[in-house]
Amino acid sequence: MASLKRLLVGSPIRTARLAHERLTKKTALAVFSSDALSSTAYATEEILLVLAAAYVWGGQAHAFSRVIPITIGIASLLIIVAISYRQTIHEYPSGGGAYIVAKDNLGTLPGLIAGASLLVDYILTVSVSVAAGVAAITSVFVGTRWAWLDEHRVAFCLFFIAFIAIANLRGVRESGALFAGPTYAFIVTFLFMLAYGLIRYYLNPGIVPPPNDVDLQVAEGYQAGPLTLFLLLGAFSNGCAALTGIEAISNGIPAFKQPEADNAAKTLTWMAALLATMFIGTSAMAYLYNIHPHQHETVISQFGRIIFTGYFSWFYYLVQITTAAILVLAANTSFADFPRLSSLLARDRFLPRQFANRGDRLVFSNGIVLLAVFSGILVWAFRGETSRLIPLYAVGVFLSFTLSQAGMVVHWWHKGKALRAAAESPADEAKAEKASHWRKSIVINGIGAIATCVVLFVFIATKFIHGAWVVVLLVPLLVLMFLKIHRHYVDVAQQLSTEGLGQLRPIHHEVIVPISGIHRGVIAALEYAKSIAPHHVTAVYVNLDDETTQKVREKWEQWGSGVNLVVVASPYRSLLRPLLNYVDRVKRSSHGEVVTIVLPEFVPAKWWQNLLHNHNSLFLKGALLFKRGVVVTNVPYHLEH
Amino acid sequence: MASLKRLLVGSPIRTARLAHERLTKKTALAVFSSDALSSTAYATEEILLVLAAAYVWGGQAHAFSRVIPITIGIASLLIIVAISYRQTIHEYPSGGGAYIVAKDNLGTLPGLIAGASLLVDYILTVSVSVAAGVAAITSVFVGTRWAWLDEHRVAFCLFFIAFIAIANLRGVRESGALFAGPTYAFIVTFLFMLAYGLIRYYLNPGIVPPPNDVDLQVAEGYQAGPLTLFLLLGAFSNGCAALTGIEAISNGIPAFKQPEADNAAKTLTWMAALLATMFIGTSAMAYLYNIHPHQHETVISQFGRIIFTGYFSWFYYLVQITTAAILVLAANTSFADFPRLSSLLARDRFLPRQFANRGDRLVFSNGIVLLAVFSGILVWAFRGETSRLIPLYAVGVFLSFTLSQAGMVVHWWHKGKALRAAAESPADEAKAEKASHWRKSIVINGIGAIATCVVLFVFIATKFIHGAWVVVLLVPLLVLMFLKIHRHYVDVAQQLSTEGLGQLRPIHHEVIVPISGIHRGVIAALEYAKSIAPHHVTAVYVNLDDETTQKVREKWEQWGSGVNLVVVASPYRSLLRPLLNYVDRVKRSSHGEVVTIVLPEFVPAKWWQNLLHNHNSLFLKGALLFKRGVVVTNVPYHLEH
Repeated sequence: MASLKRLLVGSPIRTARLAHERLTKKTALAVFSSDALSSTAYATEEILLVLAAAYVWGGQAHAFSRVIPITIGIASLLIIVAISYRQTIHEYPSGGGAYIVAKDNLGTLPGLIAGASLLVDYILTVSVSVAAGVAAITSVFVGTRWAWLDEHRVAFCLFFIAFIAIANLRGVRESGALFAGPTYAFIVTFLFMLAYGLIRYYLNPGIVPPPNDVDLQVAEGYQAGPLTLFLLLGAFSNGCAALTGIEAISNGIPAFKQPEADNAAKTLTWMAALLATMFIGTSAMAYLYNIHPHQHETVISQFGRIIFTGYFSWFYYLVQITTAAILVLAANTSFADFPRLSSLLARDRFLPRQFANRGDRLVFSNGIVLLAVFSGILVWAFRGETSRLIPLYAVGVFLSFTLSQAGMVVHWWHKGKALRAAAESPADEAKAEKASHWRKSIVINGIGAIATCVVLFVFIATKFIHGAWVVVLLVPLLVLMFLKIHRHYVDVAQQLSTEGLGQLRPIHHEVIVPISGIHRGVIAALEYAKSIAPHHVTAVYVNLDDETTQKVREKWEQWGSGVNLVVVASPYRSLLRPLLNYVDRVKRSSHGEVVTIVLPEFVPAKWWQNLLHNHNSLFLKGALLFKRGVVVTNVPYHLEH
Repeated sequence: MASLKRLLVGSPIRTARLAHERLTKKTALAVFSSDALSSTAYATEEILLVLAAAYVWGGQAHAFSRVIPITIGIASLLIIVAISYRQTIHEYPSGGGAYIVAKDNLGTLPGLIAGASLLVDYILTVSVSVAAGVAAITSVFVGTRWAWLDEHRVAFCLFFIAFIAIANLRGVRESGALFAGPTYAFIVTFLFMLAYGLIRYYLNPGIVPPPNDVDLQVAEGYQAGPLTLFLLLGAFSNGCAALTGIEAISNGIPAFKQPEADNAAKTLTWMAALLATMFIGTSAMAYLYNIHPHQHETVISQFGRIIFTGYFSWFYYLVQITTAAILVLAANTSFADFPRLSSLLARDRFLPRQFANRGDRLVFSNGIVLLAVFSGILVWAFRGETSRLIPLYAVGVFLSFTLSQAGMVVHWWHKGKALRAAAESPADEAKAEKASHWRKSIVINGIGAIATCVVLFVFIATKFIHGAWVVVLLVPLLVLMFLKIHRHYVDVAQQLSTEGLGQLRPIHHEVIVPISGIHRGVIAALEYAKSIAPHHVTAVYVNLDDETTQKVREKWEQWGSGVNLVVVASPYRSLLRPLLNYVDRVKRSSHGEVVTIVLPEFVPAKWWQNLLHNHNSLFLKGALLFKRGVVVTNVPYHLEH
């Protein structure tokens, strides 16, 4: 076991190396932006899937053209959110996730709501990204004799999740090194594909094929119908999946090299610019090239097949591979953020404390494992299909966006008040200038909060019945769990507090030695028992068989060395029950003195030998654990071979 | 868990009721003979399956007629073995299984070989009987729209095995009551069927249909070929499955009412007579009615369909039901014998001692569970097909027959020698007569031994490649395991023996209290530690974080009450390693004194709260168990809510 773990995750790393495990801007862009950027691989398609409901209704052939205004709308929202978050980064350089910002400025409950939403969405990010990545791979094989690979998508998804989890258990620096290559390969390849598509279209518009409606797919849960505002909002909601992951950087500032905040803000700007470009580009190409959403092939794959022909067809495969790679690795963003957020929650005692500890590779191992398990379950439950997962997705993220921006508004308000108070003292120009600065900031974050809040309501209106209800239900349940855990920890701390405790008291002992016969192990236990309470030791023997009991009594004369032997009856041949009853009797008559059970136990030399002995002492220990005022002492007797 | 167990197996029974859990002759015949009698349901078919190899070869249309002499041969062998075993019963009234007889007279190793063979065969009995019982049920549905039931035979088998195991876990008296009805119903129904078949044949020979060779089946592993002696011996070997279970009574004498031996002997005679009659009758009917072995329908079922027509066709269903019932319940014989034999082996320390204990329903629960598990695995591995299991079957039984009869020969020889010696003293007529009696006995058992030994070699010659090799391999491995277990127990007894041990020695303590902070649980542990060794207590704290450590040091000033606090470093954030290293250091410097680790441990009030705490003390206890001279004391601190 231990050596398998070493092989997979490597040898332990010293705590002292913690400070050195930091990322450069370039590496950080790779680690934190893969989620956001990779969503370009499916966001356009998810919009088209909803518009398809109007397209198949007939007379709505122009329905797909609405992808352009919707995409521009989402890109605008993206820019608002990014600007909003830049402010957060500077104000919370030690990591300004929605949980911290909301908790600091709005209170614990909003903080926990933000935290729960994010945890849920991190799990979904892993599932959605991995599912889309696998779809990119299986798309390549459409129409070939490898098309059956599509049936095994769940297995592929689970394999990739396990792969990323292990990479992350190895530690954050190594993850960065692992993921930088694919991310940059994707960015370059994808941008080139868009540019090439655009150029070919203008040089030779005849390249565009007629629309292909074989295998046309409509978003799950949508019926053919007219192109209503509600449908457009549904398409917009689906497309907003593109925005998830934009907050990753603000959660992960401490992983940046110094100066952390500046580097993080610059990286965020780059990420937003790239995302907007790629997303708008993809939607534009889908529109120009008449691409409709298909059951077994992604939109990107269809587009790639059209433009890369002849000598260039190998480029199609390159696009699919890098898309798959970035999608599968996009899940990595969550593997950086989920454990970090759960460690924050654990440190504030809202999650089990095991999540607060760094494992021996300096990463929060428990959080990584938990994320892998839950996202695996989701992928399995939704059969690895991206479009089934999308309605659950992004709801949590936008809830946390709203809470975080609203928190920033309150933050600026308080900061401004302090500055105004300071500015009232005369002749403090610098502070007065800063005081005017907060007004601008409050407006920026205010716009962010309002925009994301409106979108959140659009989500709930359009996606609720398609799956968003799961998230709406889950977040309050998680918050309740957080609160219950917190109450327990506070309670324990109070009960264990030394507050009001007097000086140490002397203890009076009463010692019981349960014996199964008379042998060296028992003698050793008796010696020990007499050493801690010379005149208060009793040996207890359970009578399972009169004959054997008589023999034990006789031997006791020689070996008991004056210790009182009590024989208890056991009509049902049980060992435990009579012993426990006896302990209860002694406890009642000892008036609050400590009763110590000294258990003789022999330890076999080889593990398999344990199978040859009954484990009564183990069961006894388990049962005694729940008796107050009973101390259990194990006196082991080690066998030689 | 506990209440589910109670529901299934009932409430505990007092040891004092043990003597009353005895069987009358009638009930005993039902409990112990179901295995032997039920084999008539498949023994004839297993002979025909081998003969079919000659039948399909062409020109050997008379091959199936050989079933008659083969059956008569097997029945003669049955009578020899039964007479032989009657002698054993009288000489070993407290249970004369092959294991005991062989061990007493031939030595431990032959005894263990007999024991191992029987254990293997008991498992096979369960698998074969249950598989044949299920075949009786599925035969009914051949040609109907329920024919698909045949595909689920493994599931049915597993269900029945679980059913019998639970019945047996409830206790032997109740098992008898449960099984008497079906056994007698089978005997009456089956005998009536044979008589009815015979009468109809002589009244109207035209009832016999022409042979039906659609779906004709040949025994697995046999190729079409001439009717050689080897083939005949193969058919004979397969048919000998009828003899398994004949030894059941001699193993189970203590379960009879007094006088045990007489009752057991009479029951054995009845059983042998019934078995011989039913077996010969079945083979005769199969021959008279031209019945050939088929793939999806048993021989009995074919016969029943032919003779029970018109108003009597309901009787066909009755035969199938009672046949299925007795077959499924035949497995019960093994559920009485396997646990009894393993308890004997366990009491002689050749099996883990857990098998020697009666459970709370006065039965050997562990043996019952083990038998159910292994026979379930066999059924699953051989897809619930009787004819695949037959080549493995009966080998063990005949090995144990041979050893047991040979043991009886030696037994009589010694007895005779003693009597001869006594007879030399003059005028002791009675003893002289007894002395002549032993000669007769030695001949009877000698014939039994030789006959079964010859058959055993026939088995190995004819069935080895078809599966008997598994048993030939397994028996020596089991014997090796017995010996290894025995060596361990003897070794432990020697090491634990008080032989040569002096008087109790006074113990010098060195006490270590590992602490995770300063709270009431730790204070309680300190109080306890000081009470057992006032001046030799050290508290140890693992430094995971300098800041927290400093706080602990400060608090220690107030609460440590003079106890020395040692802080150990932990560069890899592990708690266990530094603690264990510290314990080792103390042990080295304490020169053989006992080191006691007093572990503060708080016990949450509800089970789920355990999930919120790390279980370092559990891991620590596990690791400390393997250190010599280290005593672990748990001082629990119970939380209120």
